[in-house]
Amino acid sequence: MIKVSIVGGSGYGGGELLRILTNHPYVEINKITSKNYIGKQISFIHPNLRNKINKVFCSLEELEKCDLLFIALPNLESMKYIEKFSSLANYIIDLGADFRLKNLELFEKYYQTKHLSPDLINKFLYTIPEINRQEIKKYKYFSCPGCEATSIILALYPLVQEKIINEKTKIIADVKIGSSAAGSKPSLSTHHPERNSVIRTYHPINHRHEAEIKEFLNLNVEITATAVEIVRGILSTTHIFFDGNQNLKEKDIWQIYFKYYQNEPFIRIINQKEGLYRLPEPKILWGTNYCDIGFKINEETKRLVILSAIDNLVKGTAGQAVQIMNILFNIEEKTGLDFIGLHPV
Amino acid sequence: MIKVSIVGGSGYGGGELLRILTNHPYVEINKITSKNYIGKQISFIHPNLRNKINKVFCSLEELEKCDLLFIALPNLESMKYIEKFSSLANYIIDLGADFRLKNLELFEKYYQTKHLSPDLINKFLYTIPEINRQEIKKYKYFSCPGCEATSIILALYPLVQEKIINEKTKIIADVKIGSSAAGSKPSLSTHHPERNSVIRTYHPINHRHEAEIKEFLNLNVEITATAVEIVRGILSTTHIFFDGNQNLKEKDIWQIYFKYYQNEPFIRIINQKEGLYRLPEPKILWGTNYCDIGFKINEETKRLVILSAIDNLVKGTAGQAVQIMNILFNIEEKTGLDFIGLHPV
Amino acid sequence: MIKVSIVGGSGYGGGELLRILTNHPYVEINKITSKNYIGKQISFIHPNLRNKINKVFCSLEELEKCDLLFIALPNLESMKYIEKFSSLANYIIDLGADFRLKNLELFEKYYQTKHLSPDLINKFLYTIPEINRQEIKKYKYFSCPGCEATSIILALYPLVQEKIINEKTKIIADVKIGSSAAGSKPSLSTHHPERNSVIRTYHPINHRHEAEIKEFLNLNVEITATAVEIVRGILSTTHIFFDGNQNLKEKDIWQIYFKYYQNEPFIRIINQKEGLYRLPEPKILWGTNYCDIGFKINEETKRLVILSAIDNLVKGTAGQAVQIMNILFNIEEKTGLDFIGLHPV
Amino acid sequence: MIKVSIVGGSGYGGGELLRILTNHPYVEINKITSKNYIGKQISFIHPNLRNKINKVFCSLEELEKCDLLFIALPNLESMKYIEKFSSLANYIIDLGADFRLKNLELFEKYYQTKHLSPDLINKFLYTIPEINRQEIKKYKYFSCPGCEATSIILALYPLVQEKIINEKTKIIADVKIGSSAAGSKPSLSTHHPERNSVIRTYHPINHRHEAEIKEFLNLNVEITATAVEIVRGILSTTHIFFDGNQNLKEKDIWQIYFKYYQNEPFIRIINQKEGLYRLPEPKILWGTNYCDIGFKINEETKRLVILSAIDNLVKGTAGQAVQIMNILFNIEEKTGLDFIGLHPV
Repeated sequence: MIKVSIVGGSGYGGGELLRILTNHPYVEINKITSKNYIGKQISFIHPNLRNKINKVFCSLEELEKCDLLFIALPNLESMKYIEKFSSLANYIIDLGADFRLKNLELFEKYYQTKHLSPDLINKFLYTIPEINRQEIKKYKYFSCPGCEATSIILALYPLVQEKIINEKTKIIADVKIGSSAAGSKPSLSTHHPERNSVIRTYHPINHRHEAEIKEFLNLNVEITATAVEIVRGILSTTHIFFDGNQNLKEKDIWQIYFKYYQNEPFIRIINQKEGLYRLPEPKILWGTNYCDIGFKINEETKRLVILSAIDNLVKGTAGQAVQIMNILFNIEEKTGLDFIGLHPV
Repeated sequence: MIKVSIVGGSGYGGGELLRILTNHPYVEINKITSKNYIGKQISFIHPNLRNKINKVFCSLEELEKCDLLFIALPNLESMKYIEKFSSLANYIIDLGADFRLKNLELFEKYYQTKHLSPDLINKFLYTIPEINRQEIKKYKYFSCPGCEATSIILALYPLVQEKIINEKTKIIADVKIGSSAAGSKPSLSTHHPERNSVIRTYHPINHRHEAEIKEFLNLNVEITATAVEIVRGILSTTHIFFDGNQNLKEKDIWQIYFKYYQNEPFIRIINQKEGLYRLPEPKILWGTNYCDIGFKINEETKRLVILSAIDNLVKGTAGQAVQIMNILFNIEEKTGLDFIGLHPV
Repeated sequence: MIKVSIVGGSGYGGGELLRILTNHPYVEINKITSKNYIGKQISFIHPNLRNKINKVFCSLEELEKCDLLFIALPNLESMKYIEKFSSLANYIIDLGADFRLKNLELFEKYYQTKHLSPDLINKFLYTIPEINRQEIKKYKYFSCPGCEATSIILALYPLVQEKIINEKTKIIADVKIGSSAAGSKPSLSTHHPERNSVIRTYHPINHRHEAEIKEFLNLNVEITATAVEIVRGILSTTHIFFDGNQNLKEKDIWQIYFKYYQNEPFIRIINQKEGLYRLPEPKILWGTNYCDIGFKINEETKRLVILSAIDNLVKGTAGQAVQIMNILFNIEEKTGLDFIGLHPV
Repeated sequence: MIKVSIVGGSGYGGGELLRILTNHPYVEINKITSKNYIGKQISFIHPNLRNKINKVFCSLEELEKCDLLFIALPNLESMKYIEKFSSLANYIIDLGADFRLKNLELFEKYYQTKHLSPDLINKFLYTIPEINRQEIKKYKYFSCPGCEATSIILALYPLVQEKIINEKTKIIADVKIGSSAAGSKPSLSTHHPERNSVIRTYHPINHRHEAEIKEFLNLNVEITATAVEIVRGILSTTHIFFDGNQNLKEKDIWQIYFKYYQNEPFIRIINQKEGLYRLPEPKILWGTNYCDIGFKINEETKRLVILSAIDNLVKGTAGQAVQIMNILFNIEEKTGLDFIGLHPV
């Protein structure tokens, strides 16, 4: 049994970790911290866990030694406490943004603050298992990608490997996203009468996840993010004008994705000729760790449209973290992550 | 031209007043107060009013003399300032709860506080024009009913008049309601990921509007209120077991509603045999001042189900207030209130 | 391994059976029939099952001998083929309405048709495991209750046992329900622009499930059903005026539910003093087999409000069917039904 | 009074025309045709029109002479009857696609059929009043642009005029759209349980409206259309990489839009620094004839993002048609189109 604790357990990422780990056969949950709910039952905040977990939130001070620490704090918090965390656990998986970027300049540009633990950055592996699964055993600290970045990177990685695109390619990722991505703290922008039924482009340019894509894939992707009426889910529509000299056909694209992802347990290539769900659709992924990827090519205009869908709280956050843990501890990769998804929903 | 000011113009009731009054041919809007947005453009908070109203919110202190003051403050606020308000305007229409109840004991039971201006209560007319239109000219101060109460009172009034029901009748009003009824202030209960897709019975018993129905119609209605996934709208399903000696048929009910409401501009009796919209449906009333009323009778079990639908912000709040103003100032009752409603929506 | 086939696998009940059974460790899925999609991949209709089940729909004629037949046909279909079905399998679990009622007169009144296999009715056990689990081993054929009926019966059963209510008690069940309950066949009433955002009371009186509640609990419950904006989920708000001589307090109600349900794996009693999820809420039950039950009592007026929430496709249909199968075959009751539910969603 | 008839009055475009024209002071509605609802009350299909219009649908044969015929048929229907229609009315405004394209080759490529009345095409003016208002008086027949095209053309026109973009510019319009755009006929793709909560890219490439943009503005815009959870509304996010030699700043873009649209009654330029509604948002436009336009520029990467929002049934269909009628008949352009929009909603 792996003894894990969760720092920041009252947020949505933390709650999702708890949901997954509660049913994980090789995990023993030790402590769950929260700043605002110390002493409250976990199920007071995460009512889906009623009868499933009988614990209360504790303070950071009450954390004990454990095998693995999941950090699910708001961005720019974990770098404040990282020394303490490393003294408590051998392994750390950070779901937040603090240790994603190696380049401090890029970090400061996108996060508008100095990094508080620059020395530790290189100890972290920025991890998407489908891409750098082999590196995991070499590290003890892991930084999980942002949810939008996860969906975009998985969509683009095979094209980079096959040299269809590179740093000069103009790439636009038009991301549609649900309200849970904004976190568990109420504000006017998430007040139901204001947030309901929106199609609200809240990040037309300069999205932070551009930085991690730049570092990880050396691509210049411009992200435009639009909030839509859904709680969970991301659909990234990535538009690429590929080089005029390339003569790509739809079947070439098929083969490329097949080559890289055919054995991946959490990636499905979706490209049906008919039916309602011809292309990736986030709603059938709620609660699952899948990333569904589809595409269409306009051969005439040399435009490629890649669609990638995930549940932002699972493959985009907590599920990916558990996937990393499974690999790290030699557990079958799908353990705890086998929820099939609902239809209809 | 009637010179009006609005106290509490940044809330949803205030915003709806502004939407209606901006296009009202006989109204000149003077001041619009707000506690939190002094100096901000009205359209900053109510973006639908862009290019329509070029004013900023002001403080209570900046209010000037005017003909009519609309008060759209949170409950239990207007009784604090009512002296000041009466010094500023001849006429007052209060959209809040402060002056609805004559009975102080009932007020204290349901609002859990002492009334701060008990002497003024009797100067206010609790007004539903369809019921006491004739009284309006005798008063200068008006208290608008709560939104749930409006829908229930309009559904029950003809049955009281015809002695189908009385204070001994057991009546349950199962109210379904949208999120705008909770006001414009964010909280965890209105945080989109928590509020979305709910069917949440937040008031199973002891709803405050029971008190005003008791006072106005002398009925003992038990309200159970359930929040559903919608921003605007109320459907009140009122269940009545009528006296076993009565031998009511559906056509009798028809005749009763027809008798009281046939000439009412804002009440429609809806009881189709076929079609999708056989009975009242709140969504086609968004933005309108209608109260649609329908019914079904189970002759065998002597049960009557009355359905009444309104837009809580219009007939339930701001629209009813403007309707009262129109009557008070001898303006055609529908003026400013002629929006037809949208379909589909 | 239990060899099961599913008749009517392209509907929503059938799809939900497939989702649950695909991950069930003791079940081998044999045939899956569909009238309209013969030869099509299962995942063409149920896209959540991609990579999980690699089979095509077949015709009724292609059914083979198996241990257990799940019938998920539209109402009034299974009675046409029941002879054939019984020749194929030892055990039958029918999710539809055909064999729920023993009383033919009641059947004809509510379903407006003659029964085609009246001789077989008594071979079926109308089954809610929490109530008649002990009977299951005595039968081979099982009829699953309707989804609204399930939620109402589970809410009322302890009160019947304790003689709080009986056939003379006036009981109103005001049911709020999602769109999946209307089935998988498109119509104008489920056309998105018409169905979206509704609060539509489509069954004010004479709901069919009144009949099975009458038969099973000998109660006269009047159901009013209202469609709301959700795909999955039912909240039944059951209003009871109990006898004036009873002097019930909230803690008495607590004890009654606790007595009957404390050891039930799929029933949770929800009655928090504070927090958002104080009472049952269907959305956190999507995909789960839970029935959450809560209540409030107005001691003054002798009114009791019972709230019961389920996922109509799981505890209301397919999940309950699998629960019956588990009991029948001596499998741990929760097998295949351990999904925790999502939050937020 | 202008005597108008509506062909195809039971669809959503026809219903919206009826809503607008019913309150129009200079219009007398004569006949309203429908293929499927002959003899039915208008309000049977459009329940918002109860008490507002007391007419029944008639057949095409029952049409009479009138001043103006609005044609709101499904695409590829009006070209079948256009001879008949021109014999009945002096003026025709066609809301469908049949007469939008002058280039028959383009028509055949995108609509996959031969045109049945090619001779009449040039009699039609493809009309967006903000762009070719001056031409209206020279024509008798008018073809209204598609809803997506309207939003994109209004976003791009000033940039074409100012030579920021031209036929060589790579332009991607990522369109998010509500369910009413798919029309009033039920299908599996609009079945509520399947359509609810979607982020479904149903047209990744080769959208038909590319053709009319090409003809009208001589631009090569690639449209990707994604259905989202909303009934009404379009947000078009148009991504442009402008020429590296241009040195555009945000204020330049402001000035360009201001130059072309400052006096337009139905266009608002939205670009706030703060607040929730900083950029165009379709939901506050429901029922209105506005097109709200906003933008952001990434000066570093020479990318421009233009956002344009409309109600697809109003400015995208029926509202624009009435706007054309008003200009044609010398009526104040905003007549009948002054609904302000709702907030919150």
